[in-house]
Amino acid sequence: MKPTDMDKEGTELTEETEHMIEKNGAKETENVVSAGDTKEMRAVILSGFGGLNKLRVTKKAMPEPQEGEVKIRVKACGLNFLDLMVRQGNIDNPPKTPLVPGFECSGIVEAMGENTKGFEIGDRVMAFVNYNAWAEVVCTPLDYVYNMPDDMTFPEAAAFSMNFVAAYMMLFEVANLREGMSVLVHSAGGGVGQAVAQLCATIPSVTVFGTASSFKHEAIKDSVTHLFDRNADYVQEVKKISPEGVDIVLDCLSGENTGKGLGLLRPLGTYILYGSSNMVTGETKSFFSLAKSWWQVEKVNPIKLYEENKVIAGFSLLNLLFKQGRCGQVKTVVEKLFSLYNQKKIKPVVDSLWALEEVKEAMQRIHDRGNIGKLILDVEKSPTPLMASDSTETSEAGEEEEEHEGDSDNKERMPFIQ
Amino acid sequence: MKPTDMDKEGTELTEETEHMIEKNGAKETENVVSAGDTKEMRAVILSGFGGLNKLRVTKKAMPEPQEGEVKIRVKACGLNFLDLMVRQGNIDNPPKTPLVPGFECSGIVEAMGENTKGFEIGDRVMAFVNYNAWAEVVCTPLDYVYNMPDDMTFPEAAAFSMNFVAAYMMLFEVANLREGMSVLVHSAGGGVGQAVAQLCATIPSVTVFGTASSFKHEAIKDSVTHLFDRNADYVQEVKKISPEGVDIVLDCLSGENTGKGLGLLRPLGTYILYGSSNMVTGETKSFFSLAKSWWQVEKVNPIKLYEENKVIAGFSLLNLLFKQGRCGQVKTVVEKLFSLYNQKKIKPVVDSLWALEEVKEAMQRIHDRGNIGKLILDVEKSPTPLMASDSTETSEAGEEEEEHEGDSDNKERMPFIQ
Repeated sequence: MKPTDMDKEGTELTEETEHMIEKNGAKETENVVSAGDTKEMRAVILSGFGGLNKLRVTKKAMPEPQEGEVKIRVKACGLNFLDLMVRQGNIDNPPKTPLVPGFECSGIVEAMGENTKGFEIGDRVMAFVNYNAWAEVVCTPLDYVYNMPDDMTFPEAAAFSMNFVAAYMMLFEVANLREGMSVLVHSAGGGVGQAVAQLCATIPSVTVFGTASSFKHEAIKDSVTHLFDRNADYVQEVKKISPEGVDIVLDCLSGENTGKGLGLLRPLGTYILYGSSNMVTGETKSFFSLAKSWWQVEKVNPIKLYEENKVIAGFSLLNLLFKQGRCGQVKTVVEKLFSLYNQKKIKPVVDSLWALEEVKEAMQRIHDRGNIGKLILDVEKSPTPLMASDSTETSEAGEEEEEHEGDSDNKERMPFIQ
Repeated sequence: MKPTDMDKEGTELTEETEHMIEKNGAKETENVVSAGDTKEMRAVILSGFGGLNKLRVTKKAMPEPQEGEVKIRVKACGLNFLDLMVRQGNIDNPPKTPLVPGFECSGIVEAMGENTKGFEIGDRVMAFVNYNAWAEVVCTPLDYVYNMPDDMTFPEAAAFSMNFVAAYMMLFEVANLREGMSVLVHSAGGGVGQAVAQLCATIPSVTVFGTASSFKHEAIKDSVTHLFDRNADYVQEVKKISPEGVDIVLDCLSGENTGKGLGLLRPLGTYILYGSSNMVTGETKSFFSLAKSWWQVEKVNPIKLYEENKVIAGFSLLNLLFKQGRCGQVKTVVEKLFSLYNQKKIKPVVDSLWALEEVKEAMQRIHDRGNIGKLILDVEKSPTPLMASDSTETSEAGEEEEEHEGDSDNKERMPFIQ
């Protein structure tokens, strides 16, 4: 990489290095050494919106923290369904490419911006990032960084941030979950689904209805009360068990499910749309054609809500954090969640660990709904030789993944390609 | 009134009287005597949907309690905006006329249905009724009857039930009001508006924005934080003070206000539509023409809710009680509210007391938005001679109302016709 390729942050490296050395000695040096070339870092790059072939790992100028920012040596990153939508450009106001995807990570504080306090070099932290998480180093404002519990592993922390914060805020701040209520969650085997199930278990007598692909049922059956196949008519299945319906419907799908979900609500029940995974259906459909049909079919009539005593809500954690400035509220939620973690009431479920170079295979796994719990990019993991190639759109190399070294949570890991 | 006019309950009078006498002695006898002719009662009758001239007071067969019901000698009834909509037939699935309007009352338990326990003859009670409240006697199922606090007057109880229960459930069960939040309420001078203001005051640091006709401002200015004229551009006024908007919007209006209200919400804020007083705009417009235009203009797009982190809810207490069977939940709310009343944290605001024969003038006062707090039909109040006529559509007799005997809450009572 030539100096002209370096971005703005890269040009400030020298000053920053001095700054780091001033503030910290041994600890920092170790990190710097382990990073190899301190001026560059590995990162996943999305070269343009589209299919998996738009992703590659490359060297990139290392960012340095601005005032108010924390520089983190990344250990693990979370991979979300949303990242697939970003890859396809299927989001509102997509940013310009090339970009480094990723919204959450865990790692070690390596430096702080000027006049910036609140963390010590060497702190183990969990962080939200507005893109740029899938790299060896990220810089993000203080408000998005949290000290991790001592017992939490880096993959757990990367699996924790978005899923548990979203699940908590939806259940307790939007929907006001209380004793005796019932919850329907789609994709119960996914990261949010597992977080929802665990958080529901912290409240007495909460009934959880979940939908998931049948092959996941054995693995997740203990986490929910009732489990249905994702292709089953879940409306009928729920009504067989609970004719009155449910108190809370969490919907990461879209389209016809909004009407179905609203129809399943008990009086005073809340339907929450928190994502739209139906939108990623292939490489050819555009966001706008899908969005338009949804808009037309599924708008909600307030008179019906009034007559039926129902609530409909939308929830986007990223918008809340990065567009709407609600960091303080999220921080309070993170503190409550860490307390639940320390009490061993919740524990992130990690599906599998992947090298940065394996990001395409990891994305394919989410796309195929193969995961149980969260997919993690493990920055220090070595890629398998096969994954070094950028050429495959659909990977036939799934069985290779059985060899991954994972943590104890992913013993049940499913074959890579279903 | 001939025996053939008597309704079903009337035919069971003899058995019921025996039942009452068996169960109770002295107390009951007193009530029976005070009622005069035990076979008939005075009631407000709506002879057909339409204008004020459809209302009159007549004698009607006295109802007797079925199994599971409580018979109440009514002292006071609440008059709500909803009653105007009923009068016009502006509700979904309107019942057949003639009917006795009214959904809430307070009074004294006079009898219980067979095999029915839970109240004693002579108990002072507050009750919900599915129509038929505006009469000297009502029968309603046990689940809708609550023992009143000792210090509460009958007019207070009749002013309490719908308004405070609705306000409480909207603020705390639908919207999850917490410390530091902000609330916008329209018609801040009305019954629900005043209940909302008082309940908000029970939570620390809650900011209440209210709209009301200017002439009410002096009377209610201490109950809310910021008060705007109802014809002012309240969106601009709120944004001047709170550029971020508010956490909760309670809207008893309709039409364009839904969009305005949603636009004013902060992230994670909740818009609640709990009524549609704009619908009663005159005697000529039909419900369906209005409903249709609202439907077309104001349907809500879930994608917008998702992007903006917003919540929209509808709330209808009557549907909750009488169609959706949530009496248990409402009972819990009533108990919490009575506790707040006993702690002197809340107190119903009674605008004025009216004889049954003055119901048309009372309705005109609500229609003209002349009230501050609740209008009460005082069953034992004598009508003024002028009010005995059924002929006036608009009453010029407003000044007469200054002579009403009211309780201490309505010193600020406004002239009847503005």
